[in-house]
Amino acid sequence: MNKLTQTYNCMVAQSGGPTSAINASLAGVVHQVLASKQYDICYGSINGIVGILNENYLNFNEILELPNMSIEKLKLSPSMYLGSCRYKIKSFQDDPATYEKIFEQFEKKNIKAFFYIGGNDSMDTVMKLSAYSKQIGSDVRIIGIPKTIDNDLCVTDHTPGFGSAAKYIATSVLEIAHDTFIYPVDSVTIIEIMGRDAGWLTAASALARNDYQQAPHLIYLPEAEFDDDQFIADVKHILAQRQNVIVAVSEGIRYSDGTYVAASGSAVDQFGHQQLSGAGKTLEYLVKEKIGVKVRSVEVNVLQRCAAHLASATDLTEAFAQGQKAVLLSLEGVTGAMVTLERLSNEPYEVTYSYYDVSKIANETKAVPRNWINEKGNDITEECLAYLLPLIQGEVSLSFTGGLPDYMPISHLNACRSKTEE
Amino acid sequence: MNKLTQTYNCMVAQSGGPTSAINASLAGVVHQVLASKQYDICYGSINGIVGILNENYLNFNEILELPNMSIEKLKLSPSMYLGSCRYKIKSFQDDPATYEKIFEQFEKKNIKAFFYIGGNDSMDTVMKLSAYSKQIGSDVRIIGIPKTIDNDLCVTDHTPGFGSAAKYIATSVLEIAHDTFIYPVDSVTIIEIMGRDAGWLTAASALARNDYQQAPHLIYLPEAEFDDDQFIADVKHILAQRQNVIVAVSEGIRYSDGTYVAASGSAVDQFGHQQLSGAGKTLEYLVKEKIGVKVRSVEVNVLQRCAAHLASATDLTEAFAQGQKAVLLSLEGVTGAMVTLERLSNEPYEVTYSYYDVSKIANETKAVPRNWINEKGNDITEECLAYLLPLIQGEVSLSFTGGLPDYMPISHLNACRSKTEE
Repeated sequence: MNKLTQTYNCMVAQSGGPTSAINASLAGVVHQVLASKQYDICYGSINGIVGILNENYLNFNEILELPNMSIEKLKLSPSMYLGSCRYKIKSFQDDPATYEKIFEQFEKKNIKAFFYIGGNDSMDTVMKLSAYSKQIGSDVRIIGIPKTIDNDLCVTDHTPGFGSAAKYIATSVLEIAHDTFIYPVDSVTIIEIMGRDAGWLTAASALARNDYQQAPHLIYLPEAEFDDDQFIADVKHILAQRQNVIVAVSEGIRYSDGTYVAASGSAVDQFGHQQLSGAGKTLEYLVKEKIGVKVRSVEVNVLQRCAAHLASATDLTEAFAQGQKAVLLSLEGVTGAMVTLERLSNEPYEVTYSYYDVSKIANETKAVPRNWINEKGNDITEECLAYLLPLIQGEVSLSFTGGLPDYMPISHLNACRSKTEE
Repeated sequence: MNKLTQTYNCMVAQSGGPTSAINASLAGVVHQVLASKQYDICYGSINGIVGILNENYLNFNEILELPNMSIEKLKLSPSMYLGSCRYKIKSFQDDPATYEKIFEQFEKKNIKAFFYIGGNDSMDTVMKLSAYSKQIGSDVRIIGIPKTIDNDLCVTDHTPGFGSAAKYIATSVLEIAHDTFIYPVDSVTIIEIMGRDAGWLTAASALARNDYQQAPHLIYLPEAEFDDDQFIADVKHILAQRQNVIVAVSEGIRYSDGTYVAASGSAVDQFGHQQLSGAGKTLEYLVKEKIGVKVRSVEVNVLQRCAAHLASATDLTEAFAQGQKAVLLSLEGVTGAMVTLERLSNEPYEVTYSYYDVSKIANETKAVPRNWINEKGNDITEECLAYLLPLIQGEVSLSFTGGLPDYMPISHLNACRSKTEE
């Protein structure tokens, strides 16, 4: 590849919710920009495209020269080094000024390629900006790099961030099994896992099973209709066989009429307001009421998306490679596309990277196929397990300082800075 | 040390709640029994002293010859390999039969020493059994080995299990800071940490602070009176300075009249029952009501006591050493004692092991000194931090199989086995 005849730069930003792998994709972009020597400066826009509107940028060429900063450390750090936004860009017809401002900035900064790392909503932005770019005859290439712990993007085999979240969840369920099995009394433990519309992460709880323990004994995903009576019958059935029952439920499980189980557990707080209890808490109350054994619900909280100390090496490697791929695609002139990953085989696990028209991906979601859930709707199938297993393989080698993981400092984020500095 | 003239055995058991280090103490006992060559068999009683009453034992000499089992793996495995119990032994006057049964078993199995690894309640058992032993002229030595994530045992500098829980909590708070700081909007995140009566674990959240981030910005322990108005004023004060506020609260925080904050947050569930919300959830509702910014509460759940993948190497080393010490003490004829740890210096961190009359330790608790909490009652002092810091140092080198930690199988525990097998 020859150096572009003129001096050009590129820009990268992150959007949506955090994952343990989204910085690995950022690291892949920055690494490949430096390695390809086709762009002069790699800018980072702070807080997604909002950073472009506010002209708030970092220069990675400078950042990487600072002490205690490196591509490798960035790869291993959780959440978003560049900050995030929840900014849904309107159509050009409704808001031409935003489009004009963004492309003015691209021109001002000599941007030839813009890489947007995010989920569904971010791909919508990639689609709209690339369509606008073509329309005005701009040669700025706009490329999406996927990320979401939910694994619900279409076309691509799986999404960066999912494998690390899955590894954290499976490890947590295994550790909760060790925690729970010590008391020889009947008990039910309900573990609530993220996933409003897709049950991939909850399905991954099945990876906790090994040759000495079979928790979770029951698994409920949003893709199969939930029924209170069937659930209670399922739990009673397992309790007849063994003392400690562990149940994995997705936060998004719902009844046949489409209402969320969580919504049925609404309670009134001390101020008289209705508060949703969450699916786990709702089922905890249900078990207490209908079975009466010792019961506890555990919400695997935000740590499932940011516990980078337990990231999947496979996930980070793939996230990094997809960042690299985006840079290479931009140099080939590709635009309006999202980087995709195709699985060539499970054993040995092998993947290849490609790209796909982002307009076919944005605003669509990929659910767990119903035939990857058992007929009763309370477990996943072997086929689903075989799909999941390779994604949690490999551990990262994290540095620790003073007993804590040594992550990339994020003091440049608005939210970290004192308001008086702004 | 000469071999005891006759063939004698010893027994070990675990009791109370799980920690990431209680198996390290068990490993220390087993290792030292084998190394000292003074006892022939090291028995493990399943489910604490209940195992003695049920004559339910393991023989560690045999277990360690099984494939895939080792002292090192036991040391790194979370929760309790021997299972637990919540069995409060009555006084001899009220229940002589239990004492007689236990000592009959000791005689039948040629037990010369019994090691009980546990917290406060377990030390009560050690106290009672050793007093009875003396009373009947038995030469069975009864020795307690401390463990509790709560760090609330007296006399000893700190307890095995606490350092690992503290490391998990500090790491989690740091990762939650990375997760939270990405959005440039005002928000409050409340992290609820275990500790009903002592705030040690919540204090450990302060270890998350580093040169680029100062979360948690507020810390509330049970040892300082909680006041709703002061709390809201504290949060508003921080919100005036920065956008994202992270608050660490102990589950046991209470008002000046002694009532738990959690109790004030009771709500009515869908069955019409009163449900305690937990301190974090209660304060979430309070912030929503009084300040109205984006607010989330995160309960650091049971993983804080069983996430062995993030154990403190210092903690496991000390837990192991205290198991060894107990065996050595028994061979010196010590009984009615708990192994203790004395800190010689913070920098360099240095400790020594000793023992103390268990009757002075059982049923007492050690709180965070009020002068280790700032005057306002919303943070800890530098002195407290200096005490905590050495305890989370060092990481363990855990094996992984198939993407998950490779722990000691617990298929022998009652609760793991099918009921039909029993």
